[in-house]
Amino acid sequence: MFMDNIKQYLSKKRQLVDQTLGSYFVDKGNTLFDIMYYSLDHGKRIRPILAIAGYEACGGKDINEIMPIACGLELIHTYSLIHDDLPSMDNDDFRRGRESAHKKFGEATAILSGDGLFAYAYELISNGNGLVAEKNKVISRVSEAVGPKGIVFGQMLDIAAVDPLTPKKLRNIHLNKTAKFIEVSIECGALIAKASEKTIEKIKKGGILLGMLFQYTDDILDVVGERSALGKTPGKDKTAGKITASAVYGLDGARFRAKRYAERAKAVFHALGSEFMFFDQIIEYILNRTF
Amino acid sequence: MFMDNIKQYLSKKRQLVDQTLGSYFVDKGNTLFDIMYYSLDHGKRIRPILAIAGYEACGGKDINEIMPIACGLELIHTYSLIHDDLPSMDNDDFRRGRESAHKKFGEATAILSGDGLFAYAYELISNGNGLVAEKNKVISRVSEAVGPKGIVFGQMLDIAAVDPLTPKKLRNIHLNKTAKFIEVSIECGALIAKASEKTIEKIKKGGILLGMLFQYTDDILDVVGERSALGKTPGKDKTAGKITASAVYGLDGARFRAKRYAERAKAVFHALGSEFMFFDQIIEYILNRTF
Repeated sequence: MFMDNIKQYLSKKRQLVDQTLGSYFVDKGNTLFDIMYYSLDHGKRIRPILAIAGYEACGGKDINEIMPIACGLELIHTYSLIHDDLPSMDNDDFRRGRESAHKKFGEATAILSGDGLFAYAYELISNGNGLVAEKNKVISRVSEAVGPKGIVFGQMLDIAAVDPLTPKKLRNIHLNKTAKFIEVSIECGALIAKASEKTIEKIKKGGILLGMLFQYTDDILDVVGERSALGKTPGKDKTAGKITASAVYGLDGARFRAKRYAERAKAVFHALGSEFMFFDQIIEYILNRTF
Repeated sequence: MFMDNIKQYLSKKRQLVDQTLGSYFVDKGNTLFDIMYYSLDHGKRIRPILAIAGYEACGGKDINEIMPIACGLELIHTYSLIHDDLPSMDNDDFRRGRESAHKKFGEATAILSGDGLFAYAYELISNGNGLVAEKNKVISRVSEAVGPKGIVFGQMLDIAAVDPLTPKKLRNIHLNKTAKFIEVSIECGALIAKASEKTIEKIKKGGILLGMLFQYTDDILDVVGERSALGKTPGKDKTAGKITASAVYGLDGARFRAKRYAERAKAVFHALGSEFMFFDQIIEYILNRTF
């Protein structure tokens, strides 16, 4: 019953996100948009759904306010996947159940399609329906989370990481590469719904914990996941000698810590009141995900 | 006398831009900022100077309003150079008088330093002093000019271009790869100075002409320029069989058309009144540039 609710919720929101994303990519009269859309298609839409969930939990009533931002987050996430998959980085040929962008279109076009998604995300966000002050704050926070103080920094640490695999290095990579952007996704929803600063501070804390949980389950799935369910190649992190949660703590240790992150995240969202009850289910769903 | 004025003006503004850029890159406690700054250093700062000139011509009085945006434009320009220079794209090992980013730091780090500059540009712009409505408009216009309807599209056309070299293809590449971003640089200044819509429409027209002129002189310098002055390798476009103005029109034809773009651009800025007189000198300077 519990899991049925969340599955239904996620499926409904995913459809909405997919529909809106599609509307941003029709009739553009230039093939670059088709190429960008190829990589965008078939995502789980976790970040846009978190933005919508954050918006609704904070009392937002007009979903059109948050949709361009939610979709912008997915564009940015997709751009980061395209660049991470490149031969000079993680060299992954399989993503979202199909050939990765550089395998399909060649390296130059892949890089450019990532660059294009990144820029187009900002165009969508700035042209969206929200009030300019809130949108400006969103742009500032998103840029911080995805740039050289966030994802880009995390990816650099990730590709440069060498032995020994320490918990400190692991945390720094997870925090920058994944958790900050997951956190900001929820925060965007709260900002556009004009949540109080106090609420936003708590969301930041809960969002980071949820983001750490998300990366822990990603690391676990790299060990135990199935290629068909994941839509990407498992075992790559291990082969590449990457610093992952299971490499540092062992599989059981990683599972134990994932569960602890889930509990801590739940506690923070509980404290935000009944409007945030749904985050309980989201957290549980992420903890138990198989893809 | 005439040229002394403009040289002094450009030198003064360049110093100001360099100083402000430097202030955004100190004490960040992460080496990625140093790596990004390496590629940022030693630029001509044409786009930031055009933003400042547009701001001042439209009556802007507080230079701190435009500086974060002016610098953001330079970050975005530098990111596009880093990605263009990559082995899978134009494969240029020499830029701004030194090894290009991928030659110096390796391909993965170069891609990431470009990504980092792009994101950091938006952070600077959104955190700047201007009013949020104007900043939001700037972000929208910049994103359009540098994304899949602008620079990224132009670069894709450029790397995919095949015979025959037609004037139409040439114009499409120049417009998207260079002219739109040059135009938007001036427009940003006008937007932040709260220029009227009528003024901005004229600036757009003049800016595109100035941008076309800029790319024409770039193409000419690829044929006649000196490596030491350019800080990049001349002759690369020709070797790569690229569509350039001199390839399509011959060197004399390209020079003739560059001059015509300069005259048309001047006429548009003249019509904007005496506050824009200085654009005469900027245009003349670009027409006669040797680097």
